[in-house]
Amino acid sequence: MPSGEFALIDRFFRDIGARRDVPVGVGDDGAVLAPPAGHDLVAVVDTIVESVHFPAGSPARSIGHRALAVNLSDVAAMGATAAWALLALTLPEADERWLAEFTAGFGMLAHAHDVQLVGGDLTSGPLAVTVQVLGTVPRSAALLRSGGRPGDLVYVTGTPGDAACGLALLQGRLRTPATADAAALAALRERFLFPAPRCAIGERLRGVASACIDLSDGLAGDLSKLALASGCGARVDVTQLPLSAPLLEVAGRAAAEHFALTGGDDYELCFTVPPARVPELEGLACTAIGRLAEGRGLAVCRGDSVIEFSHSGFDHFAR
Amino acid sequence: MPSGEFALIDRFFRDIGARRDVPVGVGDDGAVLAPPAGHDLVAVVDTIVESVHFPAGSPARSIGHRALAVNLSDVAAMGATAAWALLALTLPEADERWLAEFTAGFGMLAHAHDVQLVGGDLTSGPLAVTVQVLGTVPRSAALLRSGGRPGDLVYVTGTPGDAACGLALLQGRLRTPATADAAALAALRERFLFPAPRCAIGERLRGVASACIDLSDGLAGDLSKLALASGCGARVDVTQLPLSAPLLEVAGRAAAEHFALTGGDDYELCFTVPPARVPELEGLACTAIGRLAEGRGLAVCRGDSVIEFSHSGFDHFAR
Repeated sequence: MPSGEFALIDRFFRDIGARRDVPVGVGDDGAVLAPPAGHDLVAVVDTIVESVHFPAGSPARSIGHRALAVNLSDVAAMGATAAWALLALTLPEADERWLAEFTAGFGMLAHAHDVQLVGGDLTSGPLAVTVQVLGTVPRSAALLRSGGRPGDLVYVTGTPGDAACGLALLQGRLRTPATADAAALAALRERFLFPAPRCAIGERLRGVASACIDLSDGLAGDLSKLALASGCGARVDVTQLPLSAPLLEVAGRAAAEHFALTGGDDYELCFTVPPARVPELEGLACTAIGRLAEGRGLAVCRGDSVIEFSHSGFDHFAR
Repeated sequence: MPSGEFALIDRFFRDIGARRDVPVGVGDDGAVLAPPAGHDLVAVVDTIVESVHFPAGSPARSIGHRALAVNLSDVAAMGATAAWALLALTLPEADERWLAEFTAGFGMLAHAHDVQLVGGDLTSGPLAVTVQVLGTVPRSAALLRSGGRPGDLVYVTGTPGDAACGLALLQGRLRTPATADAAALAALRERFLFPAPRCAIGERLRGVASACIDLSDGLAGDLSKLALASGCGARVDVTQLPLSAPLLEVAGRAAAEHFALTGGDDYELCFTVPPARVPELEGLACTAIGRLAEGRGLAVCRGDSVIEFSHSGFDHFAR
């Protein structure tokens, strides 16, 4: 059985994810990669920390999956294609069963998106995972937050709110109706534990969307950031929010809307599209929920009436 | 005064390091970078954790410097030129004075090596810093650990052992002679707190060195890794170790040799050079300390005699 740091790296981290054509992968001082000609490189990094981003005692498979998923989601929001990942894993102890589950969760998602783990760092300390993903995008084609214009339609992929409700369930913070279906409860927990980054949609949005952001801190907060970066305001109609059947069943309509607008951890994409390009969205799993507008700030409406709403998204250092 | 996460990022992390020509830097879902044509990309990542890699209460300026330095050192060991950095910073609280010192330490070193901070993540949690640096190297010219051959000379830059002695001083683990010079003590502490990555030397070694590794876990352990990757053994003569005057004065000869062979945190380069190419090292601050040899393992010698020696370098999960 391997025990030390280098034996652990050899055993658990050498062949994670897809096999791409990489000059030098895990095992030297750095990875050597050959980006394709005519492309820009997109680089993202995100950390998840125990008891901050996921409950203590979360399944290791979920932690491995989420650490990669949150980064793939950022790459998708840039319209880029993920290619390589680096993993900095800080662990209180070298529990081999935990590592096997963690790398299985990370590796399955990496395989699914043709991403190869090419390097990393394994250190002792409080449980935290920092992943960095490198992707490629045809030169100057990256999707930014700043390209939106008043009149563009606002879209969201999937069904936001599910993950936040799932986390509330996992943490025992949500009183559920006695009639709640076990499958609905399980589906919501799964959405928190194993979010699906929208990589294929992100790539399809290149040349179509005017701006894009991924939903990590909540739809209202993240759309506000997109609107601010685009120099305009935004208007969202809560009656248009694509709320999932499990979310409506478990949380009820009012709480479901609240989860969808303010809950983090969705890792869906929110993007804007000029009206003339809307036909190009044909076949994409997304829903129009509002429009960018002149002015500043986010107006949350129910049909034609603006409703009171205030939430700026999750903030690690809010006072 | 800014308080939340996004205000902190705006205030402290927007303009760190050099200004390079970057399509998209801090502030979107990811950074967009344009690697030069005809080059490979080198990607490295390293984490430093409080109480593991640096003593609790270390100066924030040193933490910022070291978090970048350990990564620049890895890039240098690949013979690459560092260009861009991403910073994942996990902090227990948003102390603005601490952040100002941290970013000053990070930023000064980044400027010195023409590196731009292009992205990152700021989260709450136990103090840990993960930095990822991207560098470029002419296609197929990266220095690997695996290119050494029996007969190649082994070189080391600078004066290894100083940083480990400095850390022992900072932790009060070393009894110092009453006569020890204050300047010598300060110099050793400084070598731990503000290591100088050997970026210029790493670039100069392209096409000259046959193999290269940076010294993070101790000369003996790291040279053993290089020899193993090169499929050969190595022989080091302790009488040839370039020990600094402060190290000899403070620790004495025997302990100085031990620090140089087994102490971590040097961030010097250890590299091998075929005898015919030795003249090309003219002007580089490095010292020949041994040779690669047929066989396996590291022999530590004093002149012609092999001495008893056993140390495999720092291991986070040694049992």
